[in-house]
Amino acid sequence: MTPTAEKLAALGFANVDLQRLERQGVPEVVYGAGKTAEQIAGILSALRDAGQSPVLVTRLDPDKAAAVAERVGPDFAYLPEGRLGRLGAPRPVGGLGPIAIVTGGTSDQPVAEEAALTAETLGNEVVRIYDVGVAGLHRLLSRVDALRSASVIIAVAGMEGALASVVGGLVAAPVIAVPTSVGYGAAFDGLAALLSMLNSCSAGVSVVNIDNGFGAGFLASRINHMGYGH
Amino acid sequence: MTPTAEKLAALGFANVDLQRLERQGVPEVVYGAGKTAEQIAGILSALRDAGQSPVLVTRLDPDKAAAVAERVGPDFAYLPEGRLGRLGAPRPVGGLGPIAIVTGGTSDQPVAEEAALTAETLGNEVVRIYDVGVAGLHRLLSRVDALRSASVIIAVAGMEGALASVVGGLVAAPVIAVPTSVGYGAAFDGLAALLSMLNSCSAGVSVVNIDNGFGAGFLASRINHMGYGH
Amino acid sequence: MTPTAEKLAALGFANVDLQRLERQGVPEVVYGAGKTAEQIAGILSALRDAGQSPVLVTRLDPDKAAAVAERVGPDFAYLPEGRLGRLGAPRPVGGLGPIAIVTGGTSDQPVAEEAALTAETLGNEVVRIYDVGVAGLHRLLSRVDALRSASVIIAVAGMEGALASVVGGLVAAPVIAVPTSVGYGAAFDGLAALLSMLNSCSAGVSVVNIDNGFGAGFLASRINHMGYGH
Amino acid sequence: MTPTAEKLAALGFANVDLQRLERQGVPEVVYGAGKTAEQIAGILSALRDAGQSPVLVTRLDPDKAAAVAERVGPDFAYLPEGRLGRLGAPRPVGGLGPIAIVTGGTSDQPVAEEAALTAETLGNEVVRIYDVGVAGLHRLLSRVDALRSASVIIAVAGMEGALASVVGGLVAAPVIAVPTSVGYGAAFDGLAALLSMLNSCSAGVSVVNIDNGFGAGFLASRINHMGYGH
Amino acid sequence: MTPTAEKLAALGFANVDLQRLERQGVPEVVYGAGKTAEQIAGILSALRDAGQSPVLVTRLDPDKAAAVAERVGPDFAYLPEGRLGRLGAPRPVGGLGPIAIVTGGTSDQPVAEEAALTAETLGNEVVRIYDVGVAGLHRLLSRVDALRSASVIIAVAGMEGALASVVGGLVAAPVIAVPTSVGYGAAFDGLAALLSMLNSCSAGVSVVNIDNGFGAGFLASRINHMGYGH
Amino acid sequence: MTPTAEKLAALGFANVDLQRLERQGVPEVVYGAGKTAEQIAGILSALRDAGQSPVLVTRLDPDKAAAVAERVGPDFAYLPEGRLGRLGAPRPVGGLGPIAIVTGGTSDQPVAEEAALTAETLGNEVVRIYDVGVAGLHRLLSRVDALRSASVIIAVAGMEGALASVVGGLVAAPVIAVPTSVGYGAAFDGLAALLSMLNSCSAGVSVVNIDNGFGAGFLASRINHMGYGH
Amino acid sequence: MTPTAEKLAALGFANVDLQRLERQGVPEVVYGAGKTAEQIAGILSALRDAGQSPVLVTRLDPDKAAAVAERVGPDFAYLPEGRLGRLGAPRPVGGLGPIAIVTGGTSDQPVAEEAALTAETLGNEVVRIYDVGVAGLHRLLSRVDALRSASVIIAVAGMEGALASVVGGLVAAPVIAVPTSVGYGAAFDGLAALLSMLNSCSAGVSVVNIDNGFGAGFLASRINHMGYGH
Amino acid sequence: MTPTAEKLAALGFANVDLQRLERQGVPEVVYGAGKTAEQIAGILSALRDAGQSPVLVTRLDPDKAAAVAERVGPDFAYLPEGRLGRLGAPRPVGGLGPIAIVTGGTSDQPVAEEAALTAETLGNEVVRIYDVGVAGLHRLLSRVDALRSASVIIAVAGMEGALASVVGGLVAAPVIAVPTSVGYGAAFDGLAALLSMLNSCSAGVSVVNIDNGFGAGFLASRINHMGYGH
Repeated sequence: MTPTAEKLAALGFANVDLQRLERQGVPEVVYGAGKTAEQIAGILSALRDAGQSPVLVTRLDPDKAAAVAERVGPDFAYLPEGRLGRLGAPRPVGGLGPIAIVTGGTSDQPVAEEAALTAETLGNEVVRIYDVGVAGLHRLLSRVDALRSASVIIAVAGMEGALASVVGGLVAAPVIAVPTSVGYGAAFDGLAALLSMLNSCSAGVSVVNIDNGFGAGFLASRINHMGYGH
Repeated sequence: MTPTAEKLAALGFANVDLQRLERQGVPEVVYGAGKTAEQIAGILSALRDAGQSPVLVTRLDPDKAAAVAERVGPDFAYLPEGRLGRLGAPRPVGGLGPIAIVTGGTSDQPVAEEAALTAETLGNEVVRIYDVGVAGLHRLLSRVDALRSASVIIAVAGMEGALASVVGGLVAAPVIAVPTSVGYGAAFDGLAALLSMLNSCSAGVSVVNIDNGFGAGFLASRINHMGYGH
Repeated sequence: MTPTAEKLAALGFANVDLQRLERQGVPEVVYGAGKTAEQIAGILSALRDAGQSPVLVTRLDPDKAAAVAERVGPDFAYLPEGRLGRLGAPRPVGGLGPIAIVTGGTSDQPVAEEAALTAETLGNEVVRIYDVGVAGLHRLLSRVDALRSASVIIAVAGMEGALASVVGGLVAAPVIAVPTSVGYGAAFDGLAALLSMLNSCSAGVSVVNIDNGFGAGFLASRINHMGYGH
Repeated sequence: MTPTAEKLAALGFANVDLQRLERQGVPEVVYGAGKTAEQIAGILSALRDAGQSPVLVTRLDPDKAAAVAERVGPDFAYLPEGRLGRLGAPRPVGGLGPIAIVTGGTSDQPVAEEAALTAETLGNEVVRIYDVGVAGLHRLLSRVDALRSASVIIAVAGMEGALASVVGGLVAAPVIAVPTSVGYGAAFDGLAALLSMLNSCSAGVSVVNIDNGFGAGFLASRINHMGYGH
Repeated sequence: MTPTAEKLAALGFANVDLQRLERQGVPEVVYGAGKTAEQIAGILSALRDAGQSPVLVTRLDPDKAAAVAERVGPDFAYLPEGRLGRLGAPRPVGGLGPIAIVTGGTSDQPVAEEAALTAETLGNEVVRIYDVGVAGLHRLLSRVDALRSASVIIAVAGMEGALASVVGGLVAAPVIAVPTSVGYGAAFDGLAALLSMLNSCSAGVSVVNIDNGFGAGFLASRINHMGYGH
Repeated sequence: MTPTAEKLAALGFANVDLQRLERQGVPEVVYGAGKTAEQIAGILSALRDAGQSPVLVTRLDPDKAAAVAERVGPDFAYLPEGRLGRLGAPRPVGGLGPIAIVTGGTSDQPVAEEAALTAETLGNEVVRIYDVGVAGLHRLLSRVDALRSASVIIAVAGMEGALASVVGGLVAAPVIAVPTSVGYGAAFDGLAALLSMLNSCSAGVSVVNIDNGFGAGFLASRINHMGYGH
Repeated sequence: MTPTAEKLAALGFANVDLQRLERQGVPEVVYGAGKTAEQIAGILSALRDAGQSPVLVTRLDPDKAAAVAERVGPDFAYLPEGRLGRLGAPRPVGGLGPIAIVTGGTSDQPVAEEAALTAETLGNEVVRIYDVGVAGLHRLLSRVDALRSASVIIAVAGMEGALASVVGGLVAAPVIAVPTSVGYGAAFDGLAALLSMLNSCSAGVSVVNIDNGFGAGFLASRINHMGYGH
Repeated sequence: MTPTAEKLAALGFANVDLQRLERQGVPEVVYGAGKTAEQIAGILSALRDAGQSPVLVTRLDPDKAAAVAERVGPDFAYLPEGRLGRLGAPRPVGGLGPIAIVTGGTSDQPVAEEAALTAETLGNEVVRIYDVGVAGLHRLLSRVDALRSASVIIAVAGMEGALASVVGGLVAAPVIAVPTSVGYGAAFDGLAALLSMLNSCSAGVSVVNIDNGFGAGFLASRINHMGYGH
């Protein structure tokens, strides 16, 4: 490993960005898919050596997580609900207010948990409002107060993704929409929900990639900590 | 024109189906796009000669309508809100109950009117509930009683098409969803709304082609007259 | 489990809609894909405790069904032909008339059975007219009387999905078209049949999602019971 | 113009293939879209100078045709129904039998005429069976004898394109399917009909490009003259 | 016009949402495409009567704007750079800090101005950093200080949309990416930029619809005013 | 099994078309994918009882074939190169001339063999010209004589599918193009080859579905036997 | 205009990259679509003031070109065959050898000329080999010597784009493939040719955007001048 | 095996192109996917017998490689990082200069190695610059000198593929962009990166198929050896 003037750790297979904490307030996040346990452990060690924490690993399956844990040691934790690994302790809760995470159905839960655990790791209170899809609107309407108390809202839904528009019309907070690949047939692995959310008739809604719970949690945290330091 | 044993009028450019009234309860409907005024007038005359009424012409622009009217005479009317021509008088109102037509926004109105005027021509009471998109949900919720009084509901929406799912979750009547080409960018000329409606998480919703107000009005009438004759 | 004023059972992983029977005439239907046997059993128990029956579980594979059955008890049945679970007894047969279910080929049968068993569970007589695709038109034409006796028709086909248009031209009843993912190559997992059905030149045809036999059976039942109570 | 050993006429903007008549039995066909009247006239003159006839120009609008006619002279004719120009006389009728051209609706007629006039130019008898779409199946069934008398059949349809499959199931002759861009919404400018025809459940059907009436007429002629010289 | 208990103005062609100011901090925004000048003027009058200001009209072309202005009077202004109409005065500048709007090229300017003028109307300072696409990276890098001083950043780009990822990697503020339809060929009217932005390897980026400058400006303002009232 | 006046065998799961031999010259072909060995054997028995032969089963994997063979007996053969089952003896060779089958590469061979064995079963001489893709054009050009001796040509290619156009330009016989799913990335499972072949600049080319070797062989045989009986 | 330390000219609407000549050997190229004549003239003046020449303007229609010429003066020339504007004199011919530009048909000529004139402006000899599509292969084969004498080859084709693969198999030079939007129907505005070229079975072929003649000419020049200075 | 006048080895399942070395400077490359070990070994033997070396086999998995090695002998090597087999020794290093290979992230490494090992086999020095994606731009900028020293650059990236444009703007060498299938959701298996790269706003960039490391390495070598023999 070669730390350099440009603040990166050159591992051969990876150039770990050691400048990111300073530049963006959060250390580099490791995309776990397509990397070996050895590679992930190497990257985590480089970041730990550089004093950066907490570090998240996304899309990490349990077997690979166990192999990483063995190499990295006890300050590495696996959060299976969100397929996340975490090196170091979560940050203390701060920010403007709670982040509400809303889902259309039970099958959207893994993506929602990826968002929730990311946001909690980065120092946010999270309120989970799950399985309140628009087919039974009273379930959502009964939680409007909780929604309106949140500083940022993450709306997670597959199939037709209508939840984002409905939530967007009820609140004054920014809404981050996460389409999921839940569904079949003309859902086309999340495309229907993605297009639906991009065309939301409610203003104040923006969209991240299909199944990108991490991105939503990260962005929500960033918004929630604006003016409050990271 | 040659009427035949098989009940069709062979006009050369068209084989008018004179059996359709008997077979399906409604005379052949003329798709006006891509036909000349002469062709349309010829088909209408053949149907009138065969005693079939009322006959609808869809996707008819005003200039062509004027040319048709000149050829066909006073029992032809043009209904510009729905770009429809009609030969003969509308049927008297009947069926199980009113058909409710709901739209997301003002721009969906031409498609909605195509549905409404089709249903009225075929003998249905129509209740128009326009501009009640989900961005301001209270507008829709304030009309739930009217929705629940309808025997069939037509939900017309562009952009993300969430209206169909929300309406579908509120009522026990069949919902016919009509995606419209209203929108821009990732609306892809109605594709987003179409996919959204096909993936509705509310049961009891089916879908017709983008901008197909006629098809929705026709089907709604057919359902509304089941068990009541046509 | 927490029943609430809003009539839902908050299970943590799910908010069961206990109001749906009253609002829509049929209890909440459980989408089985992406849920564990434990989750499904929990939802079924909540619905049973609220006195709601019959409850359908869709897209349920045999192994998961066995695990659900063990937890839920003898009033849960598995219907393997349609990959459906059912809690409680089917409703007695009622409605305006029989529902005819037509398929293009033998490979469409699982989707057709999902529709048929859904409709039978909800109290409808079902007439199965299978393997009558348009490549051998006399097979369909020999059953026209059965088709014309039905109050609602469900047309199930993959590949080019031409069956829906042909059936739609022969009858005066509403036709619900179900594209299936049967086929290969440019069938694109049901897209060809879906587009074909959406563009049907026969009026009176509407479409549900690819392979959505449940949705077709549910909607057909809803139409068939209009004016007859649920 | 430079005739060469390789049998081409090098016009600078075009390399006219003077070998094609010998190699393929028909002179080079000129694709009129995107060429100026001057270019078309130049190519036609080169072919005439090489003694090749008849030559077809496809996708030729009336104004450009008039400008070509002025330059080329009286042995150039314009066939507006098929947007075709023709240099030289049609070939005498020959081949195994008539070519039947079937359309779904009146709006498909321009594409059908492109096919018909191409086939007639190349020496085939053409039987036109227009506006017999599957929404009124008796119109097609009343012409089964004419269909079965044809040596080759061209099925021209837009919207859902079901006509090709239905015709394919009725006859023992090769069926060339031509999807048209007739329709709207989810017809996607002919894509729905194209996919439908490619997935035909009837064997013996092949497909050409959307709106490619010329290609169908050309291929039908080629098949019809097999074993009979060109 | 009928104000109601539910706080809407029922104009027949529109149900103006009079509750939105209270519910979401900003009055209803009027989507100008597909509405007549009469309809727009009617909606604006209803909102003015209800004391709501400022009101934006999006996608308004100059001719229609002139017709609206004539009906609505001097408190209506047209902002041609962003194709926006505005009723009432802009709000005074507030919020956490400036909003930076970055574009890839000169052709993206109309969309950027729609965002900028929306944000200015809603009370934000806007810093315009235009034509700094990644083909000449030093242009962007020379403005990093301005970027890092912003509380929210809007990145507007067509073609390959790489700007959003590059900006996203340089800053700690939320980045709202706006794909534009600038480009040709495989840009597919903004699809390439849209997909690019959704897959950004930089965390902290979310996306709105193609060419949706308004949505980006609105959301940026909402984020910028969090914790500061609207 | 119930033979009927309409000449079909109603097996419950299938309606075997016993009229097809008479109507189309070839017995019903069984699509093996998605059917059980029991179902296939049942259909074959019904066809054998009706004296129809030879019968092809397509897309049949070896295990299922063995199970079918056990039930059907020794007049059932499995042709693994083309994943085909065959009941009864192939027809004697006839028709106008040989059918040439050309492939772009070795990986296209299974589809080509499906075509070849289909054509041989139906009584045609087949000339195999394999692995002559356009990257090494001399391989194809060295076989031009064989190509020009064929009465029908089948061109099988994946990737960019250029072979069909090149072959189409060299011969005067009808060319049936079969795109294959060979390739990766932007081949999109055969879509690139399919689009390429549909847009062939060579006249006389038509296309069947991706990987549809059977359809090409069947159609080639039909064309080859025109005027010669089946 | 403000020249800066970073070598750019800040015009407000544009940040002209004055560093590009030094960094990349060619001055900034102006994308003419979506810019006004005033903007283009402003950019050209800034580049001229900075002593940069020759400068190309792409996608420039004749009317706008005339307006630019009026503002910029006599060292601006318009090249209508390639829709290009040019400020300053072309560079003297240099590089390793000639660049051959091959087209499938006459309709591809405007894109080919954009490439040819770009390459000539940048100091290359260009050999034009037009209208040698694969439907008449001898036309191409008669020019193999010219092809093999080129140091770089640009293959321009619409429809199925087979030309790129065929050329790629004949030569040892790099081939730059340019798909064009020539064609109709399933050509999908160049998509078919694009996919075809991306999947070329010939090695040594790379692809630029649909109709991007400029990009191909620019890249060919860059390759041709490697090791020779720019 | 039959060598022929046309310089091919006819193996039945393959026509090995023995002329390619002479015609294109490199022997035929074997596409390993979809071929058996026997077939691959047969082709390699034919090429070895014809004295052609080095020969590459692409997309070769380890098990098949072992089976090939056993048949072919010790001059066959397997290069697992790039899934490549190689018969014969690599060529000595030559050409104009080094080829730089740049990747966005660690997951792109297998595709990059396919390119690198191909280029090394064909006699090029390769400089690997891995994991320098634009989310941490300083990692790339710290390597600009290495980039600018290369004669050709290969940019390998998945997700949004922005790396190609950024690199393209920094250098004067030709850039070959390789989209990879790395990513999820709206990455659509490499489509997002592909479209992004095709629309690069940086001139001098061309694109090969998704994951086509081989093609990029081959083309880079060809460019690098121009004017230097192969």
